[in-house]
Amino acid sequence: MTNGFKLTRVGVTGVKKPVRVHRGSKDTCLNCDIDVFVDLPSTQRGSHLSRNLEVITEIVEQGVSQPIKGLEVLAADVCRKLLERHDYATYAEVQITADYFLERTLPTGRKSIESFKLKAKASSVRGNGMSKMIGVRVVGMTACPCAMETVDEMQGTTVKQQGCLPTISHNQRNITTAMLEVPEEFDVEADDLIEIVESSFSSPTFEILKRAEEARVVINAHQNPKFVEDVVRDNLSRILKRFPNLPDDTIVTVRSESEESIHKHNAMAERVTTLGELRRDSE
Amino acid sequence: MTNGFKLTRVGVTGVKKPVRVHRGSKDTCLNCDIDVFVDLPSTQRGSHLSRNLEVITEIVEQGVSQPIKGLEVLAADVCRKLLERHDYATYAEVQITADYFLERTLPTGRKSIESFKLKAKASSVRGNGMSKMIGVRVVGMTACPCAMETVDEMQGTTVKQQGCLPTISHNQRNITTAMLEVPEEFDVEADDLIEIVESSFSSPTFEILKRAEEARVVINAHQNPKFVEDVVRDNLSRILKRFPNLPDDTIVTVRSESEESIHKHNAMAERVTTLGELRRDSE
Amino acid sequence: MTNGFKLTRVGVTGVKKPVRVHRGSKDTCLNCDIDVFVDLPSTQRGSHLSRNLEVITEIVEQGVSQPIKGLEVLAADVCRKLLERHDYATYAEVQITADYFLERTLPTGRKSIESFKLKAKASSVRGNGMSKMIGVRVVGMTACPCAMETVDEMQGTTVKQQGCLPTISHNQRNITTAMLEVPEEFDVEADDLIEIVESSFSSPTFEILKRAEEARVVINAHQNPKFVEDVVRDNLSRILKRFPNLPDDTIVTVRSESEESIHKHNAMAERVTTLGELRRDSE
Amino acid sequence: MTNGFKLTRVGVTGVKKPVRVHRGSKDTCLNCDIDVFVDLPSTQRGSHLSRNLEVITEIVEQGVSQPIKGLEVLAADVCRKLLERHDYATYAEVQITADYFLERTLPTGRKSIESFKLKAKASSVRGNGMSKMIGVRVVGMTACPCAMETVDEMQGTTVKQQGCLPTISHNQRNITTAMLEVPEEFDVEADDLIEIVESSFSSPTFEILKRAEEARVVINAHQNPKFVEDVVRDNLSRILKRFPNLPDDTIVTVRSESEESIHKHNAMAERVTTLGELRRDSE
Repeated sequence: MTNGFKLTRVGVTGVKKPVRVHRGSKDTCLNCDIDVFVDLPSTQRGSHLSRNLEVITEIVEQGVSQPIKGLEVLAADVCRKLLERHDYATYAEVQITADYFLERTLPTGRKSIESFKLKAKASSVRGNGMSKMIGVRVVGMTACPCAMETVDEMQGTTVKQQGCLPTISHNQRNITTAMLEVPEEFDVEADDLIEIVESSFSSPTFEILKRAEEARVVINAHQNPKFVEDVVRDNLSRILKRFPNLPDDTIVTVRSESEESIHKHNAMAERVTTLGELRRDSE
Repeated sequence: MTNGFKLTRVGVTGVKKPVRVHRGSKDTCLNCDIDVFVDLPSTQRGSHLSRNLEVITEIVEQGVSQPIKGLEVLAADVCRKLLERHDYATYAEVQITADYFLERTLPTGRKSIESFKLKAKASSVRGNGMSKMIGVRVVGMTACPCAMETVDEMQGTTVKQQGCLPTISHNQRNITTAMLEVPEEFDVEADDLIEIVESSFSSPTFEILKRAEEARVVINAHQNPKFVEDVVRDNLSRILKRFPNLPDDTIVTVRSESEESIHKHNAMAERVTTLGELRRDSE
Repeated sequence: MTNGFKLTRVGVTGVKKPVRVHRGSKDTCLNCDIDVFVDLPSTQRGSHLSRNLEVITEIVEQGVSQPIKGLEVLAADVCRKLLERHDYATYAEVQITADYFLERTLPTGRKSIESFKLKAKASSVRGNGMSKMIGVRVVGMTACPCAMETVDEMQGTTVKQQGCLPTISHNQRNITTAMLEVPEEFDVEADDLIEIVESSFSSPTFEILKRAEEARVVINAHQNPKFVEDVVRDNLSRILKRFPNLPDDTIVTVRSESEESIHKHNAMAERVTTLGELRRDSE
Repeated sequence: MTNGFKLTRVGVTGVKKPVRVHRGSKDTCLNCDIDVFVDLPSTQRGSHLSRNLEVITEIVEQGVSQPIKGLEVLAADVCRKLLERHDYATYAEVQITADYFLERTLPTGRKSIESFKLKAKASSVRGNGMSKMIGVRVVGMTACPCAMETVDEMQGTTVKQQGCLPTISHNQRNITTAMLEVPEEFDVEADDLIEIVESSFSSPTFEILKRAEEARVVINAHQNPKFVEDVVRDNLSRILKRFPNLPDDTIVTVRSESEESIHKHNAMAERVTTLGELRRDSE
């Protein structure tokens, strides 16, 4: 007896799995946190949850001989096999998150290892193709343009001399997530998305900063003040420029949250859209 | 300069606010965690975030003279005023979460104060009415029917004597969230939703259990074994029965997550639907 | 059979309980998160965990007729009764956390409700008195004095004109916790500790800031730049001045963590000491 | 001006770093979360926080040519270098956490990759040696012996037949952390600690369980019912047996927390001690 109700999503969350990804010339081991779901018809009492784990394990193990090319590819492979294995299901969905590290170069030329998060998602309606997305979660810094302006007005410093330092403002840690659909036959590099997000902050942040480098980051951030709204829009703009060939129906979402230094709450801005809509917006 | 991109949601998250709610004959102080958003047109650089806080504060303060009737009413009032105050916005959204306590009666008749979470959401497209939802997050217990059956099969205990104890299984903490839209002119009591969720577990859980009460909870849970899928369906079924007068387009979502005792990951089931669909499903 | 090992602490964590506290002229309802522990001798297999819940419930219910005077008093009362009820125990410990709200006044005179956390702890070795502590967790803002200095040096702006605006720096959200032992016969007001922590930041933070108020907070913070180390020391210094009558063996701990805007990691400073040591340090 | 107060600990928290560890014949990449601290004398205003990051980076990079042998060795190396680099400091402390995976064999012989956490800590008082610890955080399952007994009593089933199934009880996810000091000249394998913790639960837990395996785990757990107190004591007992050669002053801490299926709160037991004390306890 199932009460006659179908279920939208049934599955497992928080499966931890080490995955070796081989992409371009790079071989990385990613510690993945994986959620997988299928739908369940009204005629069936329980989803076979252990099959979800078998599917994940099989595909990760196949990766030893045929390297996995990326988290979005892994998500799509798992998604496809979920529909095979759960023959009652008409929908499958996979979400993956993993810590990720890249070497960055400071303005002074010094190298630093910075930490990021990769995110991937795939979903498929049976007989109706596969949608897969790759995304990144990046921590950076924003300096507020409004406080800067108001301080100037209050101090009568609006007419500035050449070479002047920017005016003080509040600045803070910002966390931005950008996700982009990866249509069949196309590739999207997570590393490119990280670069886009980093360059859309007032300044990227770094693990080690010597005194002069720290001052340089502070000056850059204040020369480049941004609302959380600006961060989202600059990401969208850079994504448009970087991926001119992706089709109009490619889904893109950018979410930016500033842990405001002057408040106990956060500021948040978000856009959920397609490249086509963005292209029309910016015409 | 805004790059020409509109934004889907801009606002603040994590605003903490004590709110006095007067409902029926009960007067409660709820510590709310509030997120509020509006959309932002492409022509405007920044949303006026401080207005969001002013709106929340004004409405909570008005509550001193005109008592607030519920979190979903508060959410809708804030939502309405957000659209007034942000005249450029065409959409507003408010989400609220708060700790909540109710007295429960154990099978033995003893009273216990149990803790829950209330959730409320309101959203409005300008000129297009208001949707508001009330919901609850309840911690309970599930015992697995499948393991029970397999143990029986393995031990040849499938033919049971009358009065026999149920067979052992794995059981665990389950967290279920149920949210129901509250159409204009209707009332939905969060306390009723809590009762529905509690009665859809294998057993509700309690703060203090003397030895005999603990045994009784264990026996009840095993006489009432449920998959996470069953928990969602039983919630849906009880919601249908409890709210026969709510219209067909009333949105309902139920999500149940079991922190599996035999695995390191969780099992999850979810239905996002309307009462009308459920009524058709159960015909 | 117990293997012959005694246990240092056995108990329950995460008990949620609404508690009405009456202190001075103020009546507040606090949603408490409570942990309680006793030790367990090698001769006893299990601690009677349900007694811990009974003790909490009884004391909170007594509070209806005899109002509870504070979280540290509640913690001590629970601690005392734990030793009565667990006659095998030689040690008891109670920790409580609760959301808390106070009205603050902005420099412009406007009022704002700000959120904090209260913390209380009590511990007792049987026959050896009771130690109780009250503490607060406050979110504020720090601006870095070092980056400010380096920017000045790099720009040759070290010789400043009168009335000049402070130099830019990085600033960020800071979370500081201060806890103070409350000896028998003494009172320590959590509200005083909140005031001390708030005045030890570069600036306190506020929920609503109109433009001029926001600029004022930014200017104040930059006129008052502080390392995380300075925040701890200024708290210690203010605690010494505010509580001259507390005895030398009064325990005090201050911990401050800055969510650095220029890094992905945090900066932290801490002092765990007694008022007597601090008095000697500052002679 | 420093107010004359020394600080107990000053440093950075949440530094994320990929670290290649070579131990025995195994080469693993661990994503570490690192906290490092030194003390600060009253005469110095700020600790040089960027040196902490330099020290971590240098030692991790040296690991490329001279492989790092373990997280506790990494922690000690960083600790030692912190004291070199911060010449004003008299104390240094390092804490590291990392996700970790091991292959486990199910009772049926099938292999499964299970996830764990490694923990390491090192601290050093200048001129006074180094203390380093290695630890593990393992998720498993406990079944309650008390509820089982009470159910039996209530049902008059205390006299059991041979071959009978165990009686029902509540069971739940349990999280246990065991840490052991690693004296100079000794080695402690984290893999051994994981084995000890896993065998001290009512049952270890597994990612994939086919129906018969699931039943087997459930039966094992109920044949092996354990309080959270028993879990700690069985860990202590196994640690004593496994490490007979470690000296008496070796520090050991075991903490076990059961996410009770019948309550909304957790049960917790802990022992903080030395191997010498344990040896005396068990004589």
